[in-house]
Amino acid sequence: MKAAVLFEPNSPLQIEEISLRKPEAHEVVLRTAFAGICHTDLHYMEAQTPYPMPVVLGHESSGIVEAVGPEVRYVKPGDHVVTCLSVFCGTCEYCTTGRPALCFNPDVKLPPGASDRLKWDKSGQVHTFMNLSSFAERMLVHENAIVKIRKDMPLDRASLVGCAVMTGYGAVVNTAKIGPGDKVAVIACGGVGMAAVNSARVAGAERIIAIDTVPDKLALAREFGATDVVNPGDGDVVEQVMEMTDGGVDHALDCLGSKGTAEDAFRMLAFDGTATLVGLFRQGETIELTGSDFLRERKIQGSLLGSNRFRVDMPRIIELYMQGRMDLDAFISQKIRLEEINDGFAAMRGGKVLRSLIDFDAAS
Amino acid sequence: MKAAVLFEPNSPLQIEEISLRKPEAHEVVLRTAFAGICHTDLHYMEAQTPYPMPVVLGHESSGIVEAVGPEVRYVKPGDHVVTCLSVFCGTCEYCTTGRPALCFNPDVKLPPGASDRLKWDKSGQVHTFMNLSSFAERMLVHENAIVKIRKDMPLDRASLVGCAVMTGYGAVVNTAKIGPGDKVAVIACGGVGMAAVNSARVAGAERIIAIDTVPDKLALAREFGATDVVNPGDGDVVEQVMEMTDGGVDHALDCLGSKGTAEDAFRMLAFDGTATLVGLFRQGETIELTGSDFLRERKIQGSLLGSNRFRVDMPRIIELYMQGRMDLDAFISQKIRLEEINDGFAAMRGGKVLRSLIDFDAAS
Repeated sequence: MKAAVLFEPNSPLQIEEISLRKPEAHEVVLRTAFAGICHTDLHYMEAQTPYPMPVVLGHESSGIVEAVGPEVRYVKPGDHVVTCLSVFCGTCEYCTTGRPALCFNPDVKLPPGASDRLKWDKSGQVHTFMNLSSFAERMLVHENAIVKIRKDMPLDRASLVGCAVMTGYGAVVNTAKIGPGDKVAVIACGGVGMAAVNSARVAGAERIIAIDTVPDKLALAREFGATDVVNPGDGDVVEQVMEMTDGGVDHALDCLGSKGTAEDAFRMLAFDGTATLVGLFRQGETIELTGSDFLRERKIQGSLLGSNRFRVDMPRIIELYMQGRMDLDAFISQKIRLEEINDGFAAMRGGKVLRSLIDFDAAS
Repeated sequence: MKAAVLFEPNSPLQIEEISLRKPEAHEVVLRTAFAGICHTDLHYMEAQTPYPMPVVLGHESSGIVEAVGPEVRYVKPGDHVVTCLSVFCGTCEYCTTGRPALCFNPDVKLPPGASDRLKWDKSGQVHTFMNLSSFAERMLVHENAIVKIRKDMPLDRASLVGCAVMTGYGAVVNTAKIGPGDKVAVIACGGVGMAAVNSARVAGAERIIAIDTVPDKLALAREFGATDVVNPGDGDVVEQVMEMTDGGVDHALDCLGSKGTAEDAFRMLAFDGTATLVGLFRQGETIELTGSDFLRERKIQGSLLGSNRFRVDMPRIIELYMQGRMDLDAFISQKIRLEEINDGFAAMRGGKVLRSLIDFDAAS
């Protein structure tokens, strides 16, 4: 099968022929339908956090079950699924207390470099990315890394739910628990941020302030449900938000993951407000907060992939979409072939697209 | 009446004759029974946060109602009360959503310098401290700054509940919501820290790690319910806690309020752990946190006076004491006369005492 392989940091992905080993107990072979190109892939391509190479990236995808290994009871060939990198064991302390996204049981969640699922015909070892490796025509995954979805759900929209939409929705609904009346600010309107804006709307938030440097994204954020937009180019972001909310927001979500945006998120909070950090930080990057700002019970917390319980959350998101209440259509900027993947990354780097989807059924 | 007056930062308190104006609507005159000497008084004596002077400090006290102004229905002369600086209006957004400690309605919570309750016979203006000014034989307070208590509760123990015990208990029970099974670390075993240790015990925490540089305080913390103790003199605090808990605590409480202790509290957390900042920071002091530490859903939050709903919480604490389940006796290191107040502050600065109480009925 064809896969896009990263051989070293900051180099183009190369299309190679690789193969999967046979599914073992609890493993499933998927035919990949769609895979999104996400900033998290870029984070690892640029080695902002090191990862063993060569590696097949990609982690936001939908697919159809092609074969199952022994002991698999959850799916059968032909089932439609969304993948999720929050593979969970179901038995550990985190899983049994409703926090499966925090499961790090190495029986199911293989540490970087530990998987032998992918074989590269030329030299042997090629690494799996976060138990998925979606930039390939087929995936070999643990059955607890997928969620079965209704067959009338379009697989292109479904792939988005695998990472960006789950992360933004979950940060709003699970981690921050935003509800009616809340004043919310969302910093950085990429895929995750736009999903957060849309989810805050679905959850009833009163004010939804979208913050981004790109005017086109702010315009799109309004379509996703933002009530107000702020461009850092128009002046200090915190001052703008403080003024329009008369003292700060109840919730600020940093969907970028940087010193500046995280500090802004905390500084724009009202009394008892909560900043939720959703983006991935560069290794070693620090943030600096003023101690006395905590006195009025302000909080800052991390959200790991939207604190997801994905087998519960993803079908809910899909139901909201099918009812016309969540907007997934507007995420898709373009569909491309696997061979065009480097163009997809270039478009994302340029800030021109919200989401490029690799369509594995597109005529090549 | 006699009161201890602070005329300028870092100077001894001076005993002066001052008077109260007459109680107006919703105001109550108390005969002060006991007043604790707290680090928060010292924080303002040292002008770590500026406060208008001259001022009568003191904010942790018990007393007996001597007279009431118009419209007061909550108490009558002879009632025993504990004071609380979380005076609340009962009608604002915070009060009506269960967060009265965040009430800043200026109708009841007078900003520094705004009160005319105290008159100094020599020159007129003397400022009230946090709506209380307990270092005086009498107090003039809003009726929503006191809680009525049972008369068989000793007034010396009761005074402690007014600040230190409420703050430590509330940080554990209200803000952090610690319960059975939790692993807890408490940094700095002064009055608030010791109350947090004791409250964590009452709330069922599994491991309670007390952290302080003074061996006598660590020994006392064991009496209050600590299961383990850590002295920073024995090596890096975070490493010690990480080793003894096999990966961190669920809750860390910083009861000092400094860059070093707040950062340690955050760094010693397990996945999904929460650091709660209880101490008062110096104005402008910052803390630096590593962005990627948030990825595993760690949190850091402030607790304002234990997120108290003091009319509910203080009677609960007193009931726990009367049942022999909370320890208040061991807080009282010494009782002194008002004239000895500077000795009381010197003893606290020296780290020798947990709490000195001013006994207003002591023979002078």
